[in-house]
Amino acid sequence: MSELFYLNNLLAEIAFKSDGEIETIGLDVMLLTVSMIFLVSKIGAEICARLKLPSVLGELIAGVVIGVSGAHLLVFTAGDSTYLPGIWQDFLHNFYRLNQADAVKVFHFNEQVVSLLSDVGVILLLFEVGLESNLIELLGVGTQALLVAIVGVAVPFTLGSLGLIYGFSMPLIPSVFAGAALTATSIGITAKVLGDMDQLRTKEGQIIIGAAVIDDILGIVILAVVASLIKTGQVKLNSIIYLLIVAVIFLVGAILIGRIFSRFIVSLVNKMQTRGQLLIPALIFAFLLAYVAHRVGLETIIGSFAAGLVLAETEKGEELKLLVAPVVDLIVPIFFVCVGAKTDLGAINFNDRQGLSVAFFLILVAIIGKLATSLSLWNTDLNKLAVGVGMIPRGEVGLVFASIGAANDSVPDSIIAAIIMMIILTTFITPSWLSLVLKKNTTESTVLKPR
Amino acid sequence: MSELFYLNNLLAEIAFKSDGEIETIGLDVMLLTVSMIFLVSKIGAEICARLKLPSVLGELIAGVVIGVSGAHLLVFTAGDSTYLPGIWQDFLHNFYRLNQADAVKVFHFNEQVVSLLSDVGVILLLFEVGLESNLIELLGVGTQALLVAIVGVAVPFTLGSLGLIYGFSMPLIPSVFAGAALTATSIGITAKVLGDMDQLRTKEGQIIIGAAVIDDILGIVILAVVASLIKTGQVKLNSIIYLLIVAVIFLVGAILIGRIFSRFIVSLVNKMQTRGQLLIPALIFAFLLAYVAHRVGLETIIGSFAAGLVLAETEKGEELKLLVAPVVDLIVPIFFVCVGAKTDLGAINFNDRQGLSVAFFLILVAIIGKLATSLSLWNTDLNKLAVGVGMIPRGEVGLVFASIGAANDSVPDSIIAAIIMMIILTTFITPSWLSLVLKKNTTESTVLKPR
Repeated sequence: MSELFYLNNLLAEIAFKSDGEIETIGLDVMLLTVSMIFLVSKIGAEICARLKLPSVLGELIAGVVIGVSGAHLLVFTAGDSTYLPGIWQDFLHNFYRLNQADAVKVFHFNEQVVSLLSDVGVILLLFEVGLESNLIELLGVGTQALLVAIVGVAVPFTLGSLGLIYGFSMPLIPSVFAGAALTATSIGITAKVLGDMDQLRTKEGQIIIGAAVIDDILGIVILAVVASLIKTGQVKLNSIIYLLIVAVIFLVGAILIGRIFSRFIVSLVNKMQTRGQLLIPALIFAFLLAYVAHRVGLETIIGSFAAGLVLAETEKGEELKLLVAPVVDLIVPIFFVCVGAKTDLGAINFNDRQGLSVAFFLILVAIIGKLATSLSLWNTDLNKLAVGVGMIPRGEVGLVFASIGAANDSVPDSIIAAIIMMIILTTFITPSWLSLVLKKNTTESTVLKPR
Repeated sequence: MSELFYLNNLLAEIAFKSDGEIETIGLDVMLLTVSMIFLVSKIGAEICARLKLPSVLGELIAGVVIGVSGAHLLVFTAGDSTYLPGIWQDFLHNFYRLNQADAVKVFHFNEQVVSLLSDVGVILLLFEVGLESNLIELLGVGTQALLVAIVGVAVPFTLGSLGLIYGFSMPLIPSVFAGAALTATSIGITAKVLGDMDQLRTKEGQIIIGAAVIDDILGIVILAVVASLIKTGQVKLNSIIYLLIVAVIFLVGAILIGRIFSRFIVSLVNKMQTRGQLLIPALIFAFLLAYVAHRVGLETIIGSFAAGLVLAETEKGEELKLLVAPVVDLIVPIFFVCVGAKTDLGAINFNDRQGLSVAFFLILVAIIGKLATSLSLWNTDLNKLAVGVGMIPRGEVGLVFASIGAANDSVPDSIIAAIIMMIILTTFITPSWLSLVLKKNTTESTVLKPR
């Protein structure tokens, strides 16, 4: 150790300190951070695999261990640009001799880069899910998926809002707000479990994926409504209708135009002679659709999912899956570890009885509300429970609700904490529950196509 | 267009503006930037492939077209944190309604992220080159590689320094400085051309790679010496000896310890059950060695090259190559497009006769100095010219020299401009020249192993 320090002194003395030094340190720190994320995600995944638990649960827990509820090695400050965890301060000060201001700069740049990689991770995950899906099969279960989505939004919203108003004597606005936060399913976890268990192409898998996409769109609409309600006290019907129209135009347009465009891409790819001739055009397509989806007010993942869906239909679909797999293997764990790292167990205050009972109620409604979707399925051959369980995880959209609520006086802190606890619990119970339910019924479930 | 603007207004009205908005825009902008880089790199590569030119030349030129010498779509400001190209300002203002300060923030964050991806690109490129290499063969050509490296450093340095002192009556310090800037070969271009032509495993390929690695280390030492000379007027012998010792310890250590460690990794990999079980541990290894190399004062690429070299020796070497290929296909073009984008043709001032003649002289010495390495090879079966041509490209280290010189009064601007012109020219002529020389002699060259 002392030799290394001696050497550092020496290098600090002889090396030229340029303007780009912070950026150079940024590269070092990112290499370390990504290596750490890779390492803990693999350890977590392997431990869970040995315990017959889903690997994604291991990646989530690995994130918790290094995240804000654990070692503070991976922390996301979301806006507080002066915060610097002690362990980072020590590291950047002792190892790189950075003063406080530069250390904060390096830390925040690194945090933002990892956050960006995590976003790209979930975009690519849904691109792969799209590739593994089948447009015809998805349309075949379309009505059922639509029903599942609507029931899965309506039941938790109604139960949650009314329960808080009548059971807990809460005012209207925070009750509606909490009810809305219960609506949007987060598709990442379920998609990963389905993929790992080779169940994406079952009827249940396709219903869940289809419902989650519709659900995501409904979630965005509800978010817009509630955000407007909480800020202005009004609901603008125009906005709702416009958002719904935009979503439908985007999805239909992306698929119709995408089908033509993807054939054009494939015919171009067939003429190309240089390396990366299939993967790069495919990812340009996925990234641009993700961008457009985001621009029109939807989530990026809806765009990349649509891109995967139309590319899966082309003659290059199978080849593309093989090429995308290693890229997905690399970047998707970053997403799940980040989800875990952002999980703030500090939101749970065991001394606040009222808060805990609200949280318990919201969690119950969150689970029951999505399990209720099983009842909306008429096909008796289906593993209905699996569909319900698959819809349980809440995530990003719920967290956006929490952050809106935190910035608004009319929503009490206990509701924010309860929403966060609901997200944590639904995220962490789903992988095991879903894999259990799928395993039990795997022989009975209707597999559309053998793989 | 007008509907989109209407919609933007609407969304801006109803959407909640959170602290993370800049980061959200950051994701959008990165998706667009990476898509653009992918698109132009593929167009450039395909055009060049059709003209029977190396694809990497197309990627470089694509970078020039969108970079600081072209459309200013991809610009690296290196320290000037207030700069914002007009096209970016228009885009961020009109499309995202960002004020000047936020637009600058988004632009610089994006610039830094792309720069980081580009750094990771060259790290992975050299990891792949390491995987394609063979330690035994590399050691077999070790003496020749060492000789090529030493000749390729000594000749340009001596010719360059003396020529400027006696031919151009320059003072000692700027002359030595310019001579030093001529020494370090940039391996990226040559490695890519060799890889694309399946010539990495030829004796010539291995000599070039080995020499470039040694050359890189010598370049770092010379950089330390000249930086110290130019700042303090003195040369510290201690520092030189220490740097050389560190370099040797790192390389030998990385390979010896790495060989044991890589077997440990492979035995672990064989027991793993979850996705990404080979690629993720391999990249942890590569990233950590890159980090350590950087920490001890060498370049990151030496670390990732060493990692590839030892992993190639394991039973998983071939499988790993297949998995790394799509990742490399994706990220390496970012590196070459960035190199092109950073190429500032504005450094060439055609009115400055004295400057142009200095530049012409430096370019001549840069080329002749590396071609001279051919003469140091005693094996008559070798394609000696290919080795010489392969060593010609200068890059990063030369640019670091230019930036040090620019910050120092004792180095005239004409020398800086001449160094930059030398880097541009050697970078852009090598791909075509090398592929021409390799093609001509491909039947005669000593292929060590058929692939």
